[in-house]
Amino acid sequence: MSETDGPGPDAVQTLRWVGDIDGHLKLIDQTLLPRECREVACRDVETVWEAIRSLRVRGAPAIGIAAAYGVCLGMQDGSEESPERFFARLHQVREFLAGSRPTAVNLFTALNRMQGRAAELRAVRGPPEIRQALWEEARAIHEEDRAMCRAIGRQGAHLLGDGMGVLTHCNAGGLATSEYGTALALIYAAHEQGTRLHVFVDETRPLLQGARLTAWELAQHHIPSTLICDSMAAQVMREGRIQAVVTGADRIAANGDTANKIGTYGLAVLAHAHGIPFYVAAPSTTFDLELEHGDQIPIEQRGAAEVTEVLGQAVAPDGIEVYNPAFDVTPSRYIRAMITERGVLFPVNESRIRAVVG
Amino acid sequence: MSETDGPGPDAVQTLRWVGDIDGHLKLIDQTLLPRECREVACRDVETVWEAIRSLRVRGAPAIGIAAAYGVCLGMQDGSEESPERFFARLHQVREFLAGSRPTAVNLFTALNRMQGRAAELRAVRGPPEIRQALWEEARAIHEEDRAMCRAIGRQGAHLLGDGMGVLTHCNAGGLATSEYGTALALIYAAHEQGTRLHVFVDETRPLLQGARLTAWELAQHHIPSTLICDSMAAQVMREGRIQAVVTGADRIAANGDTANKIGTYGLAVLAHAHGIPFYVAAPSTTFDLELEHGDQIPIEQRGAAEVTEVLGQAVAPDGIEVYNPAFDVTPSRYIRAMITERGVLFPVNESRIRAVVG
Repeated sequence: MSETDGPGPDAVQTLRWVGDIDGHLKLIDQTLLPRECREVACRDVETVWEAIRSLRVRGAPAIGIAAAYGVCLGMQDGSEESPERFFARLHQVREFLAGSRPTAVNLFTALNRMQGRAAELRAVRGPPEIRQALWEEARAIHEEDRAMCRAIGRQGAHLLGDGMGVLTHCNAGGLATSEYGTALALIYAAHEQGTRLHVFVDETRPLLQGARLTAWELAQHHIPSTLICDSMAAQVMREGRIQAVVTGADRIAANGDTANKIGTYGLAVLAHAHGIPFYVAAPSTTFDLELEHGDQIPIEQRGAAEVTEVLGQAVAPDGIEVYNPAFDVTPSRYIRAMITERGVLFPVNESRIRAVVG
Repeated sequence: MSETDGPGPDAVQTLRWVGDIDGHLKLIDQTLLPRECREVACRDVETVWEAIRSLRVRGAPAIGIAAAYGVCLGMQDGSEESPERFFARLHQVREFLAGSRPTAVNLFTALNRMQGRAAELRAVRGPPEIRQALWEEARAIHEEDRAMCRAIGRQGAHLLGDGMGVLTHCNAGGLATSEYGTALALIYAAHEQGTRLHVFVDETRPLLQGARLTAWELAQHHIPSTLICDSMAAQVMREGRIQAVVTGADRIAANGDTANKIGTYGLAVLAHAHGIPFYVAAPSTTFDLELEHGDQIPIEQRGAAEVTEVLGQAVAPDGIEVYNPAFDVTPSRYIRAMITERGVLFPVNESRIRAVVG
């Protein structure tokens, strides 16, 4: 069901389809990073389901792409079926994948898009052509994500000047998307243009995505970087080592208030206090224009064990009370500019947001 | 050489002498916290040396007290010796203990005080009386620390009002001193006066003293507390849960700039941005009036493994560059008041500092 096959040293291909329509999906098993970079080969929908469920693949865009390919794998034997059986199976496959991470919005967006494509063709095409169209739709979802990340990089690269120190938080990089990321897209694009940067990577407690994933990813791209604990960011800023902070976003309200990984808000306040520009890089799909401001974004609370244990070992007394918000909300006044695939939002305000991503 | 014997549920006695001059020292083995609270019985100077070396006892005041008692243990068989042999042995014991943690200033302060007391009496007293005087000196060092911590608590308790949320960082508590601490002394004193507080405890990466030690200590005192990751402090402030921040200090310059555990400076900036008072609690011996300001305080850089490993397990890629400053310096303008055993410094400025602790 799985095999070992590392990608080349420069390429971080979070997931890739191997072969033609009868091929299979390979994805980097992120639970093994940074100790080992091993790809899991997914030859059936069950393996994709397990990879999403077990966080082998993570990050909203990457989950969506994996699920779309999962639909293709689930329908690989369906060409000979009657339309009724084909659509009954498609429904089953969709429901099965939807249960892998029920709170991941991008998972449903991708599955709905796949199902919608099949429904469009039902009256005019047979199962073999619909299966072909589904595979092309999955490849389109994948390619659009790649193009979107590249576009974010292109739009924002000029904000990072030669010799700058750039601080980032969590992993808004290739491992969360198809290959290029959002916050890290700016860094990769600038790097490709010859801009010399030094990236400071917050380890990002409690789940250490910065230490485990971003530090690894930057090393693959040969971009100089330094790992710090989250509590060291202020000191590094004070020492003049940081000229820009760039993070991703989970959800952005119409006025620009931004929900992102816990710790982002504190960094924005610290950047403001040190006169350092704070940038948010995110695709236009991250904006939720039905939310007027960030106070309407619910903050997910997570379990105590993420804080009281590290890699399964206890670091705090048993039974201690823990507060573990997964996200925080950064008011738009702390955000110098936002970088989307459609352009840079500067200044950050509702009219500019509606004009560019509305 | 060691035995198990936990202290009572309310008492956190970091170290205690058991019996008369021929007795022994017991100290809480802090390397086992928070999983287990076990005392080590030190019946000879070698065991004290090992306890300091292995961080079973930590925190500047506690190390000084342990070393003073270590001198007593090293001289327990010395009463029958000639003055020459007695003083030769005292010198050996002092040198031996001085090598346990060569960078700990309080270790040398305590050892020098013990040696000075013996030297004072050399011309007029024999070994048995000098041994008695050394034991009394060690008890005086211990008692003075206890009284100093209590005085800090008494001086500052009124700053914490009923119903307040108080954020603290690292461990400036009883485990770093004889039993009451500095920052936590304010909390203990207010609690004893019936003030209801809720303490938010930063876990304090990289070494997790907040999670391992402060959370445990507050639980022993039955003070309601909540553990958070360092990156969550800003969000907790924004939610209105914090009305005061209290930390200890490692070294304070004449103008009030304060070196303390990494992360303190960021908290001070965040507290300022949220209009929350930031207090520093420290004995007058922490002030170094020969330093005009904080830029003159050297910042110790520590090894990468503290950041890349947690409890011996890797959390970051091999060979990644790490920046790991042990301390940062908080400019005095962010510090609302300082609490010493001699009084509260408010406002924090050089003339007030020289008047109270000069």
